[in-house]
Amino acid sequence: MTDQSYPTALGASSRDAITLLGHDLANDVMGRVGFGELAFWLATQRRPDPGEVRVFEAVLAALADHGFTPTAIVTRLTWLSAPDSVQGALAAGLLGGGSRFLGVTEDCGRFLHEVVAALDADPTGLPTSTEGWDVVALDVVRRQREAGRFVPGLGHHVHKDGDPRTPRLFEIAREEGRFGPHLSLFEAIGRVHPEVIGRTLPLNGAGVCGAALADLDLPLELLRGFALLARTAGLIGQLAEELRHPVANDIFLSVDLNNRPVDPDPLPRTLESTE
Amino acid sequence: MTDQSYPTALGASSRDAITLLGHDLANDVMGRVGFGELAFWLATQRRPDPGEVRVFEAVLAALADHGFTPTAIVTRLTWLSAPDSVQGALAAGLLGGGSRFLGVTEDCGRFLHEVVAALDADPTGLPTSTEGWDVVALDVVRRQREAGRFVPGLGHHVHKDGDPRTPRLFEIAREEGRFGPHLSLFEAIGRVHPEVIGRTLPLNGAGVCGAALADLDLPLELLRGFALLARTAGLIGQLAEELRHPVANDIFLSVDLNNRPVDPDPLPRTLESTE
Amino acid sequence: MTDQSYPTALGASSRDAITLLGHDLANDVMGRVGFGELAFWLATQRRPDPGEVRVFEAVLAALADHGFTPTAIVTRLTWLSAPDSVQGALAAGLLGGGSRFLGVTEDCGRFLHEVVAALDADPTGLPTSTEGWDVVALDVVRRQREAGRFVPGLGHHVHKDGDPRTPRLFEIAREEGRFGPHLSLFEAIGRVHPEVIGRTLPLNGAGVCGAALADLDLPLELLRGFALLARTAGLIGQLAEELRHPVANDIFLSVDLNNRPVDPDPLPRTLESTE
Amino acid sequence: MTDQSYPTALGASSRDAITLLGHDLANDVMGRVGFGELAFWLATQRRPDPGEVRVFEAVLAALADHGFTPTAIVTRLTWLSAPDSVQGALAAGLLGGGSRFLGVTEDCGRFLHEVVAALDADPTGLPTSTEGWDVVALDVVRRQREAGRFVPGLGHHVHKDGDPRTPRLFEIAREEGRFGPHLSLFEAIGRVHPEVIGRTLPLNGAGVCGAALADLDLPLELLRGFALLARTAGLIGQLAEELRHPVANDIFLSVDLNNRPVDPDPLPRTLESTE
Repeated sequence: MTDQSYPTALGASSRDAITLLGHDLANDVMGRVGFGELAFWLATQRRPDPGEVRVFEAVLAALADHGFTPTAIVTRLTWLSAPDSVQGALAAGLLGGGSRFLGVTEDCGRFLHEVVAALDADPTGLPTSTEGWDVVALDVVRRQREAGRFVPGLGHHVHKDGDPRTPRLFEIAREEGRFGPHLSLFEAIGRVHPEVIGRTLPLNGAGVCGAALADLDLPLELLRGFALLARTAGLIGQLAEELRHPVANDIFLSVDLNNRPVDPDPLPRTLESTE
Repeated sequence: MTDQSYPTALGASSRDAITLLGHDLANDVMGRVGFGELAFWLATQRRPDPGEVRVFEAVLAALADHGFTPTAIVTRLTWLSAPDSVQGALAAGLLGGGSRFLGVTEDCGRFLHEVVAALDADPTGLPTSTEGWDVVALDVVRRQREAGRFVPGLGHHVHKDGDPRTPRLFEIAREEGRFGPHLSLFEAIGRVHPEVIGRTLPLNGAGVCGAALADLDLPLELLRGFALLARTAGLIGQLAEELRHPVANDIFLSVDLNNRPVDPDPLPRTLESTE
Repeated sequence: MTDQSYPTALGASSRDAITLLGHDLANDVMGRVGFGELAFWLATQRRPDPGEVRVFEAVLAALADHGFTPTAIVTRLTWLSAPDSVQGALAAGLLGGGSRFLGVTEDCGRFLHEVVAALDADPTGLPTSTEGWDVVALDVVRRQREAGRFVPGLGHHVHKDGDPRTPRLFEIAREEGRFGPHLSLFEAIGRVHPEVIGRTLPLNGAGVCGAALADLDLPLELLRGFALLARTAGLIGQLAEELRHPVANDIFLSVDLNNRPVDPDPLPRTLESTE
Repeated sequence: MTDQSYPTALGASSRDAITLLGHDLANDVMGRVGFGELAFWLATQRRPDPGEVRVFEAVLAALADHGFTPTAIVTRLTWLSAPDSVQGALAAGLLGGGSRFLGVTEDCGRFLHEVVAALDADPTGLPTSTEGWDVVALDVVRRQREAGRFVPGLGHHVHKDGDPRTPRLFEIAREEGRFGPHLSLFEAIGRVHPEVIGRTLPLNGAGVCGAALADLDLPLELLRGFALLARTAGLIGQLAEELRHPVANDIFLSVDLNNRPVDPDPLPRTLESTE
């Protein structure tokens, strides 16, 4: 163990100085770098340009809070039960950020990336026209359909006529010159899928966020992480509101007082010794 | 929402009584039901017999603590950092109970179950002899091998000549008449795999625990949960030892003092606007 | 760092053997040590006798599940939202095990211990009669009253005429010869408090569990940990029931569909620059 | 339960629109509101002005990452152990954000606020000169000293000659006209404490962040929450670096391979039945 060392380019400090990503924290980061910009920089070790920051922060805004989601309810109930631990309430809420409610962002980014990476590796390369993307998208939707799988990012249980975040994020990405192949493919899926599926589904906000993050070259393994970062801000908002206008105890009682005792439903013993 | 109600057969209470699983908690459960027995009962809503309890508790003992695993280190470091929250330290440790370190139990149980369920659904049914199980196991190992996949539960990085928990759990399950098809198949895999793989690997303890839990008819979706229950007891042991013989600060310092600042390694920007 | 080492008496393994607490895990622990017994042993590094195990497991049974508590709701909602992570659902539920819902056990144990330790340090020592305990208890309740503080473990919002767990745990502790000073003091508080407070409150189950655990010489810093261990079994029961008779989505919708958008209530800016 | 409803001013959505804090999310928030600004707005339901945002984001930058802290190590180890769950790795890291490592920010803000609120309630009001603040600070430091308590935010184990974040945050707050009573008092403590304590200690960065957040009128109950938000970005950076330059397995092995089995150290049984 004599020469074990742990390399890092993130925070470091000596008696006189603190650096972050190789820069002087006090003089070069504090007061000069916005929080979204810093989060991007920490994740990529590359300082983003203002256009990248604007797209990135638009994604974070889109994902920060959706009202009384399970994660929001969980954070409020956990704080009700353990008001001594803000960190516990936030952590509990984030733990709901898994495959179902926050996972679409990651799933969509990964799904699009697989197609884009295959095109990129192919001698013909990426399409250069709307029609070219439509051909790719049609093939992608058909293959998913034939395999009995959904297309990630397609469909929304509330915004059936269109998720307002989607065209807005397209617009912002275009304004900033960050409308890359993932967004192109996602938009094309929005155009062509009715031909395969027989009806028009909205491109949802979680999905377009995954596409936009992928077009920012952010690591796919961490797309869910950015959704969680956005949600952390939202959960602090939930706690701040709970502090002044509490609802958690009413939620708890609405369940507890409406419990209905039923008889146990024993799992049968089906297996016997094979010897 | 007027008639919403939430059925449960678990805990219920009125002004005078508390019931659990339909039984009077104070008189029929406290002082009469062991903790392993209760955990089994809560998970299945069926009271286990003493033999089932013995196999179940043997599994919990096998999985409770393995020394300085990542989960143990995490619990100790979290307590160092936030000594105000025992629940946070335990929760943090349990969060390491995922696919790699605790997942083998679940993966192995599910893997064996898939084979057993297919045999069960087949008109010829389950094998009735050691030779019969060997034929099944040989086929199973071959198919995994051909697909380039590992057999869950086979191999151990330390116990290369055999994991002592495995024969012991076989023995206990036999003594209690709970040596069912999952354990039979697992044992057969241990006998036949050298023929396919060309060398002898140990059947590991996490795997045999998954097989034994599956033979107890416990729900496969929760096999990881039982490993986590066992680990909760282990993590309390870790905290208790940390309280009297602390090592967490030394662990922290051994990393922090050996940090090596390196230059950032920027993720390249590879994608450009497609428009 | 050359000679850094981390001592532990818990799990250890070599190529051929696995030990736990200095014993051979496979031969001396598996199949021979119950799960409650093992948890006690891990926490104290002392093997409990059967009477201690019975009291300890009675406490765990008393605390395992109380129906739709915030922790139970949180575990179910987290699983709904992130079904890929059983560990996340359990951890989220445990994070509610803080000062309010599970904390009474710890608070009561610590409160009683402070009194018992002071008596123990005093030349006159612990009382040796019921009357002696009543004198101590009367003084304790009076001092809390005068300081405007509650007596931990006194009162229950449902079991107003008495919590059935309390006399039962007294009985079990007496049967096993583990009715020590903490339980004696707690029982005395139950007898004398009406004289001070003017009405009769029940001694609650969470409180008596704290007293019983303290009488087992378990470390006070970890009393909450034992409540969390009990609750882990309960939360697995909640997940198992949710798997077969789900209610989490109904709970989520009962909140989300009854959301009422209100105008923001801005926190005022009250402070100005002092320069 | 017929008329139960849950008010919220945060996220809300209808078939066609999504609002956040009463504003159209797509058109008025996305692309127009930075992430730090949004987090502040969510927590206070009041949109901050650019000066407030700059101070707030400077605080977040100061707290985002400090290299191999316990929280960073915990997040990396949890991911090593459960790579299937980014949310679990982040949540585990945040759980270390308790009283010791991240708590100074909250403690310092609360401590200063208590003094400021008392002054504010007093007819003479807040000091209006440096000398006035020095008088207050001297009294505060003396009273803490006499009570045998530390002054939160005073002292640092590495930056013994001064934490570079402190003067920089003073400067930024002054530039933005947000240097209020909490920062004034904190700065005065820095000037006068040597007179009481006999040596000069640095005002640390965590403390000055608490003072600055309090001067932004942010709720004291959530000061720790903002430190956790900052840290979430830092932990994503840790995961991103672990993904490309892993150290978690080396950390794990440096502990596990240096374990030293010792004999159990049984907690004595000290209490006997009192009956």
